[in-house]
Amino acid sequence: MPKGSTKRRPETITRLLDAALLVFAEAGLRGATIAQVCERAGYTRGAFYSNFDSLEELFFALFDRHADQQLDRLRESLEAGGFEALLAVDEAEVTWYLVSTEFTLHAIRDPAAARRLAEHDARLRATLTGILAGHLARLGRTATVDLDELARLVVALREGSLAQSLVEPDRLPPGHLEQTYLPILLAALSQ
Amino acid sequence: MPKGSTKRRPETITRLLDAALLVFAEAGLRGATIAQVCERAGYTRGAFYSNFDSLEELFFALFDRHADQQLDRLRESLEAGGFEALLAVDEAEVTWYLVSTEFTLHAIRDPAAARRLAEHDARLRATLTGILAGHLARLGRTATVDLDELARLVVALREGSLAQSLVEPDRLPPGHLEQTYLPILLAALSQ
Repeated sequence: MPKGSTKRRPETITRLLDAALLVFAEAGLRGATIAQVCERAGYTRGAFYSNFDSLEELFFALFDRHADQQLDRLRESLEAGGFEALLAVDEAEVTWYLVSTEFTLHAIRDPAAARRLAEHDARLRATLTGILAGHLARLGRTATVDLDELARLVVALREGSLAQSLVEPDRLPPGHLEQTYLPILLAALSQ
Repeated sequence: MPKGSTKRRPETITRLLDAALLVFAEAGLRGATIAQVCERAGYTRGAFYSNFDSLEELFFALFDRHADQQLDRLRESLEAGGFEALLAVDEAEVTWYLVSTEFTLHAIRDPAAARRLAEHDARLRATLTGILAGHLARLGRTATVDLDELARLVVALREGSLAQSLVEPDRLPPGHLEQTYLPILLAALSQ
């Protein structure tokens, strides 16, 4: 989590996050440096360290910002009746997919990073379970399986589908598998 | 595909593939060199070039070998009644997950690599559709959706689940989501 806050911090943090995403995507997580992020954001290292302790902390701030945005969009989309939000995959989403998947590979090799990633994943699923429960309730249904496990299943399907779509977007448009099969899956796992 | 064959080639190829998997995993795909693979396998560069044109060709030979092994195991497991094969995730499987996911990230950035990856993925799915159709037939059912799309869904669920399991194997044992939910999904998508 970013350190405390002052009046100008939200904008500083936003600019550092935007810069970091681009630097991570271009240089790779291992190649990225705090100096590169500061240069891209137009800040000194002091501005960085008054907001973050490390590049990993910045990565997780990006993770949480992206998760919040995507989950908000999914909630609105489901309230409007469907999974359309999953079809909108823009360049920023592709960039985030590349950066976050690279971090997952790092976490599989590094137990400390894995623990932090698992914590943030759990927080994401806590929100997602609420969204899924709300969606089922609007359909007059309740899940017949553990909601956290259902959220894991939805995340797995989304990420596995996105991997295939980003390799061949012309043959498998992003969001197609999820939009087609998530309603069927949710119906089969609720009553 | 590996070039032609002579009497001693199968063993040479096997040793080059085994060496390449370790080098790819340790050095990363970008860091790996033909010299490292040859040294690890105990061969000269001549032995490499009489079998492969490039490291990418070696990667795809590994891809096909791994896919064949996994699909054979899945077929046998389903003929014996269930998805138990998906539970057996050993160190070699984790190594392959890391290497193949790194290649996927490369392919998303490189259209030529994406085309080759999509070809090999399509070949994998052609076998998988046969296995799934056979499984459904033994249950007296037929798929109500396109089999290639069903295979994409199974691959997505497997890969997305594996990512979560490898980050936190103690909380989500590898294969758990697939073994639990694939039967329900296949039932919902067949009649």
